[in-house]
Parts: sequence; C-alpha cells; structure tokens
Amino acid sequence: MTDKAYALFEEQQQARGMDLNKIKSRLKALQIETPSWGYGDSGTRFKVFQKEGVPRDPFEKLEDAAQVHRLTGLCPSVAIHIPWDHVDDYGKLRSHAESLNLQIGAINPNLFQQEDYMLGSVTHTDPAVRRKATAHLLECVDIARATGSRDISLWFADGTNYPGQGSIRQRKHWMLEALAEMYSALSPDMRMLIEYKAFEPAFYHTDIADWGMAYNLALKLGEQAQVLVDTGHHLPGANVEHIVSYLIDEGRLGGFHFNSYKYADDDLIVGAINPYELFLIFYQILDAAESGEQRLIDAVNSIAYMIDQSHNIEQKIPAMIRSVLNVQTQYAKALLVDHREVAEAQQRGDVLGAEDAVRRAFEFDVTPLLHAVREEQGLPVDPMRAYLDDSYGQRILVRGKGGASW
Amino acid sequence: MTDKAYALFEEQQQARGMDLNKIKSRLKALQIETPSWGYGDSGTRFKVFQKEGVPRDPFEKLEDAAQVHRLTGLCPSVAIHIPWDHVDDYGKLRSHAESLNLQIGAINPNLFQQEDYMLGSVTHTDPAVRRKATAHLLECVDIARATGSRDISLWFADGTNYPGQGSIRQRKHWMLEALAEMYSALSPDMRMLIEYKAFEPAFYHTDIADWGMAYNLALKLGEQAQVLVDTGHHLPGANVEHIVSYLIDEGRLGGFHFNSYKYADDDLIVGAINPYELFLIFYQILDAAESGEQRLIDAVNSIAYMIDQSHNIEQKIPAMIRSVLNVQTQYAKALLVDHREVAEAQQRGDVLGAEDAVRRAFEFDVTPLLHAVREEQGLPVDPMRAYLDDSYGQRILVRGKGGASW
Amino acid sequence: MTDKAYALFEEQQQARGMDLNKIKSRLKALQIETPSWGYGDSGTRFKVFQKEGVPRDPFEKLEDAAQVHRLTGLCPSVAIHIPWDHVDDYGKLRSHAESLNLQIGAINPNLFQQEDYMLGSVTHTDPAVRRKATAHLLECVDIARATGSRDISLWFADGTNYPGQGSIRQRKHWMLEALAEMYSALSPDMRMLIEYKAFEPAFYHTDIADWGMAYNLALKLGEQAQVLVDTGHHLPGANVEHIVSYLIDEGRLGGFHFNSYKYADDDLIVGAINPYELFLIFYQILDAAESGEQRLIDAVNSIAYMIDQSHNIEQKIPAMIRSVLNVQTQYAKALLVDHREVAEAQQRGDVLGAEDAVRRAFEFDVTPLLHAVREEQGLPVDPMRAYLDDSYGQRILVRGKGGASW
Amino acid sequence: MTDKAYALFEEQQQARGMDLNKIKSRLKALQIETPSWGYGDSGTRFKVFQKEGVPRDPFEKLEDAAQVHRLTGLCPSVAIHIPWDHVDDYGKLRSHAESLNLQIGAINPNLFQQEDYMLGSVTHTDPAVRRKATAHLLECVDIARATGSRDISLWFADGTNYPGQGSIRQRKHWMLEALAEMYSALSPDMRMLIEYKAFEPAFYHTDIADWGMAYNLALKLGEQAQVLVDTGHHLPGANVEHIVSYLIDEGRLGGFHFNSYKYADDDLIVGAINPYELFLIFYQILDAAESGEQRLIDAVNSIAYMIDQSHNIEQKIPAMIRSVLNVQTQYAKALLVDHREVAEAQQRGDVLGAEDAVRRAFEFDVTPLLHAVREEQGLPVDPMRAYLDDSYGQRILVRGKGGASW
Repeated sequence: MTDKAYALFEEQQQARGMDLNKIKSRLKALQIETPSWGYGDSGTRFKVFQKEGVPRDPFEKLEDAAQVHRLTGLCPSVAIHIPWDHVDDYGKLRSHAESLNLQIGAINPNLFQQEDYMLGSVTHTDPAVRRKATAHLLECVDIARATGSRDISLWFADGTNYPGQGSIRQRKHWMLEALAEMYSALSPDMRMLIEYKAFEPAFYHTDIADWGMAYNLALKLGEQAQVLVDTGHHLPGANVEHIVSYLIDEGRLGGFHFNSYKYADDDLIVGAINPYELFLIFYQILDAAESGEQRLIDAVNSIAYMIDQSHNIEQKIPAMIRSVLNVQTQYAKALLVDHREVAEAQQRGDVLGAEDAVRRAFEFDVTPLLHAVREEQGLPVDPMRAYLDDSYGQRILVRGKGGASW
Repeated sequence: MTDKAYALFEEQQQARGMDLNKIKSRLKALQIETPSWGYGDSGTRFKVFQKEGVPRDPFEKLEDAAQVHRLTGLCPSVAIHIPWDHVDDYGKLRSHAESLNLQIGAINPNLFQQEDYMLGSVTHTDPAVRRKATAHLLECVDIARATGSRDISLWFADGTNYPGQGSIRQRKHWMLEALAEMYSALSPDMRMLIEYKAFEPAFYHTDIADWGMAYNLALKLGEQAQVLVDTGHHLPGANVEHIVSYLIDEGRLGGFHFNSYKYADDDLIVGAINPYELFLIFYQILDAAESGEQRLIDAVNSIAYMIDQSHNIEQKIPAMIRSVLNVQTQYAKALLVDHREVAEAQQRGDVLGAEDAVRRAFEFDVTPLLHAVREEQGLPVDPMRAYLDDSYGQRILVRGKGGASW
Repeated sequence: MTDKAYALFEEQQQARGMDLNKIKSRLKALQIETPSWGYGDSGTRFKVFQKEGVPRDPFEKLEDAAQVHRLTGLCPSVAIHIPWDHVDDYGKLRSHAESLNLQIGAINPNLFQQEDYMLGSVTHTDPAVRRKATAHLLECVDIARATGSRDISLWFADGTNYPGQGSIRQRKHWMLEALAEMYSALSPDMRMLIEYKAFEPAFYHTDIADWGMAYNLALKLGEQAQVLVDTGHHLPGANVEHIVSYLIDEGRLGGFHFNSYKYADDDLIVGAINPYELFLIFYQILDAAESGEQRLIDAVNSIAYMIDQSHNIEQKIPAMIRSVLNVQTQYAKALLVDHREVAEAQQRGDVLGAEDAVRRAFEFDVTPLLHAVREEQGLPVDPMRAYLDDSYGQRILVRGKGGASW
Repeated sequence: MTDKAYALFEEQQQARGMDLNKIKSRLKALQIETPSWGYGDSGTRFKVFQKEGVPRDPFEKLEDAAQVHRLTGLCPSVAIHIPWDHVDDYGKLRSHAESLNLQIGAINPNLFQQEDYMLGSVTHTDPAVRRKATAHLLECVDIARATGSRDISLWFADGTNYPGQGSIRQRKHWMLEALAEMYSALSPDMRMLIEYKAFEPAFYHTDIADWGMAYNLALKLGEQAQVLVDTGHHLPGANVEHIVSYLIDEGRLGGFHFNSYKYADDDLIVGAINPYELFLIFYQILDAAESGEQRLIDAVNSIAYMIDQSHNIEQKIPAMIRSVLNVQTQYAKALLVDHREVAEAQQRGDVLGAEDAVRRAFEFDVTPLLHAVREEQGLPVDPMRAYLDDSYGQRILVRGKGGASW
C-alpha cells in the first residue's frame, strides 16, 4: 500500500507541476534541534510529576536525544541549559555528543533560578547582581566556544509584577548594557538569539515583551544579534506568521522555539493544537525562500529550528518524536504550496483563489512522501512505532525516578 | 488633619444624602478570610523564591494571620489547605486559632499534587484513583466538622492537555458523581463552594472551565452547593461583575477568591492591577443588597470573601495587609454609590449620567472614612505602617528559610 | 487518478476497520443551512463594499442559495432575517423556495437596527420598547408557521457600553420575561435557539454573554428552548468543542452558526483560520453519536448546522460554496476517527496514543472520499470549479450594485 | 465646601512635599485635541444610530468643538478627517476655527472608504490604486500646510482577511514606499504620526499591526516620523504604558489616540473602563518628564494628546466633555506621584513600597485641585454641569437628524 500510495502522490503532485526531487531534498535537509531539558521532568507551578527513566545528567540527556535523531534523522543537535547542564569539562560533553552522532546546539543561559534574581538579573537595581548576571552571559559565550556552538539563546524572565515596582526605562538601558557587553565577547561566527515573551513569570511588565523590543535590541547590537520567536510567547490572537515574515524581510529571524499553545505559554507539543498555524509559518518561510532574492534565501537558511516544550504529562522521548514529526509534516505540506499560483491569484485580486491555493497544500496527506523520504534515508518509516517497538524505553527505566528536572 | 479630613468628608457625603452611620456599620461588618498558604512561599513554574521567616507549620501560619486581623480588624478567619495544613489533631488547630482570636475558615482539599492525579483526580479513568480522590473530599468534610468550618472550597486541576486525551463527556459525569457523594456527606449547615477555571494547569480543556459549568453542578446537587468566583480564573476580557450579579440573582454566589490579574491567573495582590473592576464587583453586590428584595439580601449576606494569591516576590504578611486594605477601600467606595441616582439615570436613558453616578463614587478618597472607622474600632489608622513599625516581622526571622510552600 | 485515489483510500480505511458505507451515508445526510444575508453585501463599521450582482430581494437570495445547493447537495434550507427578508406573502416566499428545491430554514428576528433599540430591545427600560420587541418575536413565530420553519434563532445585541448604564439584574429578568412569552407561542414542533455573544455591539456587558446564560434561559423555558453556538462569539481561547460536548450531554445543543475567527467575531469563512478546531467540534459530536446512548444520538440528530458569516470582500456565492465544502471536509475527517482506538488509549492513560488517534484522522486527505460521494449523488466532483465554469455568476451581474446588505 | 476642600488638599499635598504651583501650571498647560468625527454619528457594523443635532458640515463640527474648549479650557485644537471634512477652501475652515478660538489640529487621511481600497490602499497589488492612495497622502500634506497643522495622523486599514490573500512581505515594502514619498513632501516642521492596530477591519493580518512595525517604519523614514498609540489598538492584555515608556525613551512617541476598551477596539469614552491604566500611562510620561534628561523632556513635550472615540449611544458633546475631563483627572492624579519616593523604594527592592507610592497618588480625590485650577482660569468648575445648564445643546437640535457620520 505504501508504494502505491507514493506512486499516486507522485502522480498527483507532478500533475500540479511540483518538483518532488527538490521537495525531498529540502525535507532531507530539515534540521530540528531538541532541548536537553525536554528529556527531563517539567511541570506547572502546581506540580512537577516525576517519570521513571528520565536522564540523571547531561550525558544521559544526550543519549535520549540520540534516540530521537536515530529514528527521525531530523535532530542532529541538542540545545543545553546552563547551569542545568553544567559539567566540569565541556569538551567531554562535546565528545560524548559526537560519539552519539550529535552536536551541542544552542547554549541557553539561566538567569531566573537563583535567589539573587528575584527582582531581575541584568535589569536588577543592584549593580552587583547585574554584574553576576552579565558574567553568566559571558560564561555561556565561553561554553559555546568549548562546545562548538554557534548560537546563544537568551530568554530573560526579567520584569515586574506591579506598577512602580521597577523603572521600565532604566531597566531597558540596563538590558542593552548587558547585551552589549556580551555581544562584544562573541566570536565572529557566533550569534546571539534574543527571545521575547509577553508575560510569565513577570505579570505586570516583561523587559523584553515583544518582537519589537527584541528586534530593536538586535538592531542596536549588530548583525550577529537576531530575534528568537517562541511560538507561545505572544498575546492572544497574535499573528505569529506575520512576525516571522517581517523578521525574515529585515534579516533578523534567528530561529524558533517551537511549541503549541491554546491559552498562554502552555508549552505543549508543537503542532498539536493548531497545526494550520505551524503550516502557515512554514508557508511564510518558504515564500521568502522561493522569492529568488539572495538576501531572503540567506535569511531563511540561517533560521535555527528548535523545540522548546514542557512535557508535563507525556513520556519524554515519544513526546519529542511526536514534536519533530509534527514539524516535519507541516513543513512537508508547506513545500506543496504552488507559490506562483498564489501570486497570480493575489495579482488578480482573487481572494478565494489565493486562499485556496495555500490551504489546498495543507489538505494533502503527506504520509506517502514522508515514508518515501525516510526509506531513502534508511530510517524507519514510522519512527514512533519504531521507538515503541524498541527496548530503549524499557532499558532506561533503571534510572528510576527523580532525574533531571527544570 | 485627619479630623478635618473626616469632617469635610462627612459634610460632603451628607450633602449627597449618604447615611454615614450605615456605611460605617457595613464597613465594620466586612470580613475577609485570608488563606494559610498566602503566608508561605509560592512561585511560578520557573522558581519558588524562599523568604526568611515564613511559617514552618499550620500553627505558625495562624499566628501570622492573627497579626493581619489584629491590625486590620478584617480577617477573623483563615482558610486551610489539606494536606498542606494537615495536623493530627484538628481540635488542637482550632483551639490554637481561637486562642489567637481566629476561626478556621474554608477547608480546601488538594487533589493535584500526588503522582496518582497526573491525569485527573475525581475524573481519572481509573476507579481506584477516583475513589481515593473522593475519599479525600469526604475527609475534608470531616475536617470541616472538626474545625467548625462552614465551607469547603473545591478547586479541581482536572482536565486535559490534548484533544482526545480524555473523554470530556465521561469526565463530566465522573465529576458530578464525586460531588454528589460528597454533597450527601455535608452537614445541613455546610456549604460546598465549586470553583471554576478557564485553564492552567490543564491546557486543552478543564473539567470545570467556567461559571456555567460550576453553576450547573450546583443546580444538580442542591442548595448547599454554591459557585466560587476566583477573579483570575477567566478568559481575557470576561466581565466578572456581570457573572457576580448573575449568580447573586440565581442565589448561587457562594464566595470569592480575590486576587489581581493582567494576563492569566497571575494571582497578584487584589486591587493592584485594575482597582475599578474590584469596585464594580462590589457595586453589583451592593446593588443587590439595596434592592429591598429579601432573597437578594440573603444571597449577599452569605457571600464569603476570601483572598487567594501567590506572593512570589512580596513579603507575605505585608502583602496580605495590602490585599485586605485594598478590598476594604474598594468596598468603601462602592458604599458611596447613590443607587437611586443611578436608577433614575437608567430610567431616563441617560447613559452618561448613569455612568457618572457610578464612577463618581470611585473617585472619592475614602481614607478619612477608613481612618474614622478604624479609630472607632480601636485599630491603628494605618495598619501597614503599624505592622512595619512593629517587631513581629523581625521576630519571625528566627524561623529561617525553607518554611511552608505550596 | 480519481478512481485510483478512491481505491487506495478505501483500502487504507478498510485496513483501519472503517465502515465506508456508513461514512458515506452520513456524508450524504449532512445538511448545512445557508443564511439569506450571506448572499448580500456586508462589511465592517468602516465600510460596506458593494459587489455587483448581489440579490435585490429575498427571492433573488433564494435563487443564489439554490445554486449552492445544486452544486454541493448540502444546503437544502435557507435561514431568513426579518425584516431584511420581510415579504408581504410568506406563502409565496415558501413556494418560491420549494420551486428551487429549497426550504425556508430558521427565522432570525432583528432587534438591533431600529432607533428605538439603541439602549436595548427586550431589555429596554421602557416597557413600550420591550413590548414592541416582544411583538416582533411573536411575529417571527407566526412567520415560522407560515414558512414551515422549525427553528427561530435568537441573537440579541442587548447590552450596555458602560458600568452603571443599565441594571444587569433587571435586564436579566426582562430577557426571561420576553422569551417566556415567546416560548408559550411556539407550536409543539418548533424550537427556540438562544444565541450568546461575549461582546459587540455591546462593549461593557451583553445580556446573554456566554453559553451558561443561554443555557440557563433554556432550562427555565423548557425543552423546546435550545442553545445556539456561534463559533465566533467567545472570548479569546475558549474551548468551543468543550462547550459543544457539554451542551450535547445536557440535551441542549440546538445548533451552530459556523464561521471563522482569529481575534473576535471576525465572521470569516468557516474552516479558513483554524480548521483543526472545526474538526474537533465534529469529533465531539460524533463521539456522542457513537456512544450508543439514545439520548445522545437524539441530541446529535437535532443539531442544526448553519453558516453565519460576513462576506466583506469575497464573492458571495463562491464564499458560500467554500464554506460548506470546508464544513463537509472537516466532517468527513472526523468520521475517520476510530473512537474505540481513542477510548482504549484513554483507558490505559496513553496521552500520546489518544492524541494521535484523533489527530491522525485529521491528516487524511478526504478528497477521494468526497469525490466518490459526490459522484454517487450525481453532483459535480468539484463544486467550486463547476460554479466558476457556469454562467450563473455572469448572468446575475445584471442586478448591478446596491443590492441587499445587512 | 470647595474652598475648605482645596485648603485641606493643599495642606495634605504640601505635607507630602508636592509643589502645587508646578502641578497647577502643568494642568493649565494640558492640551487635548478633539476629533471632528467625534461630534458626528458613529456606530458599529450592526447599526449607526442617528442623534438629533449632530453637525451637518465641518464648520458646525468646529462650533461644537469650540463649546468643549470654552467649558474645559483643554481643547484648543480639532483634528480633521479627509474627505469627511473636505472643504473647497481650507483657509476658510482655518479662519472659522480661529474665530472660534480654535486651531485645526492633525490631518487624518482616509484610505478605507472607497471601493478601490477593498483589498488595500498603499499596499494594493494594483499600482494605480497605490498611486491614488499615495496621492491622497500628499494631498493631506498640502491640506496640513493650508490649515497650519503640524501633524498628519496615519491609520491604515490595509491588511488581509485570509492566509495567502496578499503577500505580507511585498505589502510591507509598498507601505514603506508610499510613506517615504509622503515623508519627502513634509515641511521641516511637520510630523507624520504612524498608527498601528492589531486587527479590524483586517481579520487575518494588518500591514502595520503593532508598535514595532510602526516604530520600524519611523526609524527608516527619519526624525519627523513618529509613532501614534491608540489605546484600543492592542491585543488583549498588552501593557500599553510599557510601550509608551519605551517609545518615549526612543524619542518616537508622537502622540495618542485616547479611548477605552474592554474587549477589542471598543472606542468607548477614555477613562471609563480602566481608569488606572490611563493613570499609569501618565505616570510613565511624567516619570520621563521628571528624569532631568533633556532628550526625555523634549520627547514628552512633543506628545500630542488626542481623543479618538466612537460615540455610538452617547450625546456627542457631553461625551467629549466627559472624555477630556477623565484625561485631566488621571493626569492630575499622576502629577501627585512622588517620583523620588518611588525611586527610593525601587532602589531598596521594596516591591510593596514602590507599588504603594504609585497607587496612593491614584487614590487621592483631585476634584478640589481641578476646581481650583478651573477657577484660576476663569472656567466653570463643573464643565459638564455648565454644558447641561446651557442652551447650546437645545439650540443645535434645529440641525435635525442625519448629520455627519463616519
């Protein structure tokens, strides 16, 4: 049935003028970074449920991540969080990764879990706290050098809970000050990815609250500073794909933290709540890639796709497999958009025709295509099935409960 | 200046026909229950910051609560949370409360912090888990009897994170089943207060998601079942005072969990983000109280006012004092609405006149009135100042860090 | 290719144990009512753009609606709005409908476009205005009798823009009073569908603001009163499918007004913004239909599916065709859910398995199935293509601009 | 009582170290521009209710505006909308304004009410439509020269309703292109104020959707381009005062369109729904003004305060009086913040103290202060009362119904 299904799919798409070789090669080139913390326990403020078998240290996290890559072929790198993944010898961590066919990906500083940071880290009124926080940023640049990482991802919990609690303006300057110091420590091939978030854990104002604030910091810092879009970090109703398209056009979209949300920063499995939005994000990205303009093609090529989720109730490794498969699925669908058809409908003011040209690509079942690609890559056609049939999940139970959590 | 200020206030209000004796006596009758957990550490999923001096057990929590009541005269009862406030001898806890001039208030079962409850408590697919959860509800009824509490406040974290994860319909029936069993265990003078919440920690669907679902359960259970409105448990934009007015009219408003929110269930100090909304809630309550209809007056009289906040970065006792003072302030302002003036403007279709008649009451400075009332009650005119000048806050520092948290 | 595609689809689904005959027969039984006003001009408060060829009277609206039914086989009835569709002789309108192979569907009273209703219709302080409004409701019952309509759909714009402007409680009673009078005028086979809306055009409070208020009215009125869910009438983030499941279980889901929204009551083409939500609504409906419980099957069978959109910039007839095709598509996908597989995964607490069992059905391409069904029904396999190739759209241009608008 | 009240207020504030002369002189300097369209009929998409006595032409609108200024002393200028306020001779309109003691304020182009603009104005795919739209912008620059206006306020309805309908990226470039052409036509003393809006009337994407997009345009255009903040143009929960503080610090806050909202762009009377937010906006502005930094003081001094509301159900002139009084009231309260006290509390990490220092200013009743200021200015102490007692409102009824609307 699989062969027949692909034959039919091929016929169908070729009839539409789709170049399946190009589509397949793009699918094979897709890389999605998984986060080390996604393999550990996480939770809500009400409870962190503990699963058996979660990794007990950064090395075991990499081992779990290696399973996801082995089965999907999509995840050659792993983001780490400092100090959650602090080790004495980062060279050793890097070697461990390489032995697992992985690379260390983005370095994520943590400036929200020490008592000192209760009222801010780089935006704290106390210069000693700001210095300590900035020193941690600089340490992360060093770690990136040690691990061979290109990107340092910056998410700041900094903000206030009450009107008057802090000087919004002063904190804005302190933020820039710290980032400028860190920026000047970057190697020329490194990038600083600046994340924004509307709220939580700060409930009145967040120092970097939206893409505009992150973008403006990047503008002031220089070309190596880019914006990181976490899909769950917006106010209700935000058109995320609009922001994506905008940042690509400005040459400032550094990457994504993918996840799903229905209400706030719910951090659910990407593609599980509103898959069409994920498809539309890729549609905007591919629309830029297909534009023929080199600056846009370059912008698209430098986007880092990363997962950032909170697997509160899910089995961690299967949750990660599901996540990357969902990303792959929506990316594959977006590859089926006929951009010329869309453009022509736009040109003649055909609202329904243009909408249809986009949505139709979403309605194709790309399973046969993905199966074919996986076969060509020597991967299991159904990575989830393969994982569940494998003994790895059983073997790690010896780790017991109480492993890593964030 | 204080005397002059009150004299002027009196003159001003009497010129409007306000009955200050009645207003004062209502202010003296206001009671706001504080929650034992508001005296301990709380936080977000990212971090629980630890304060020095937080109480180490339920007895110390009561001692802190007694300070708030001593200084404000507003808080004669304290809600407890089981098992956070589990003690072997509830009679002893009650005696301790009474020795501090306090009563044990609402009993709050906890059905969200055990590993068993990861996928639901009373709505879990496993009957053994449902039984365990229901048994805890019944235990709380017994505790209420032991502590002399009238109310059991029910908040369920039960819900799902993904489409398909659970049967929405089946869970609805299991919820009713558990509550019905608990209901039948209530003494005739007890009440079951049913809380609702739009989301968090469940991010796809919450079994009791809105007032309509809580109300419908109450309808099916009987008169002793009432709805509990937590001001932060709604979707963005919800008109909370509309719900309040509605439930009073139906005779089903059991009480409030007061707090402030800007984005989601932020659990900030009540009255700190949108004080006008708090005023408008009291305006609706007093509009019912002033209606002359006995059923409405009875409904208003049975409302339990309770604080439910998360003092993540604040000093706990001062945060509680600020909270109850904010409630008192907005209640006092609402007492200055001239309901006849409003009704007349409504009657003649005078939109601006009616709006003005309500808003004007909000714009009065009620400080002189509150000072006068406190003086008459033998309380410090500025309870916050009195607390800060007192040595209690210093003395409890001997408790050290690492006390109670939720 | 079509035949091959269906053959493969059949093979695929039969391998999953799907009963394609049952699925097809359900698809053939699907009926979606289109609204007369969807064929006329509509707009935003900023501008109503005028299209050439929009119908100039109720008779022409029916003719346009007949085209949609002719091509899709899905839309045998047409909702009308009074007085927009007021005619002197409703028998004649009914005959015209029947001559076009249509029926007159739900009657929609209009209580928001006369100067008298500026501050309310059935909830106005002036008894004369309330009487006039109630009389219009009664008139609509008579029209329903004349047109052979089962349902009267009630949407009230009634509400206030400012705190204090109206008595929320009093208006609640007036609403019930008017509906009770109307209810008693219903024939035994008629239904009153009560719609709710969070906001717009009332911007402070809306008298029937959410499903709970509509449901409670229905409870008080009797079995013939049911709730109407307009998918765009909720606050941001509302879980619409939860409400749907809830109302079915209570036997009170009268029907839908389908449309899409991203921000507020955007009234876009249903299925165009978040198709997965539409699928999940049908999943809940079919989960009840498959329950084996007669009360649930009956509840599902009495749901009226209706479109209610505002085609501000779209060609009207194609917009309607697209809408009903989108509904059909998501309904077809929902028919592919294996409810037993979902239930088993739920039973064993398999979060990812249960989610997958639902989402997988959404990922199938149902085009071959829908083509097969249309062929069996003697309908064009691509109704949109058929419409665009037809001359009807050209012929109606003689109507010119300035036709019906709402 | 008034004198006593002011004496007490003075005593109270002087005890806090407030400089009442400075406060009064700031209050006297406050200027709030009213919009010509606020005197005409406006409505929702459902209905525009028609009031008797609304002005029939731009000259009468100015006459109504003159009443508001005469009574409040706050509104020396009037914004106009082209073509709603198109006249053949703008010199004559200007003279009429001057004869009424008014100036023509901001010029507001209208690019959303012609059939050509259905799919965009400056972002339309058709170059002829873009040209026409740009020509209108240039015409408005000429009108500004003729009327002596400094500011041209730009709000674009441009956007799309469906994914794929338009090229988000291409439209972004067209927007910049049109603004650049207009920018180069500005006189050196003119400003272009760029407004943003999250949604409505575009329901999928709006070309200038948030402050970041407006700011970025301003950056690219030059110093005369500034951002205009309409308080109702954000997504739910947006922290407007944060954006205000941010833009002041960047030297790019051109001005405000004030109004109130609870749900979306409700366009209600400013200060009527959440007065504390309005206060907090002024707190941020005054915090910059008090910073001692000249660039911030200059930034604050160039902010244009403008009303932009939709008086759907209100009497127009009283609604405008209420609006400007509400702005004045919250501005007066914000003037009572002791910025040094706030800063000291921030410095010592005193969350509750800092919050209290801000909120306390809000709780003062500024009525005595405003009465004193008005008396010193020779204005009626109660402008609303004065208007209602005046015969102007009666006299304009001869205009009848059916006057200006937007």
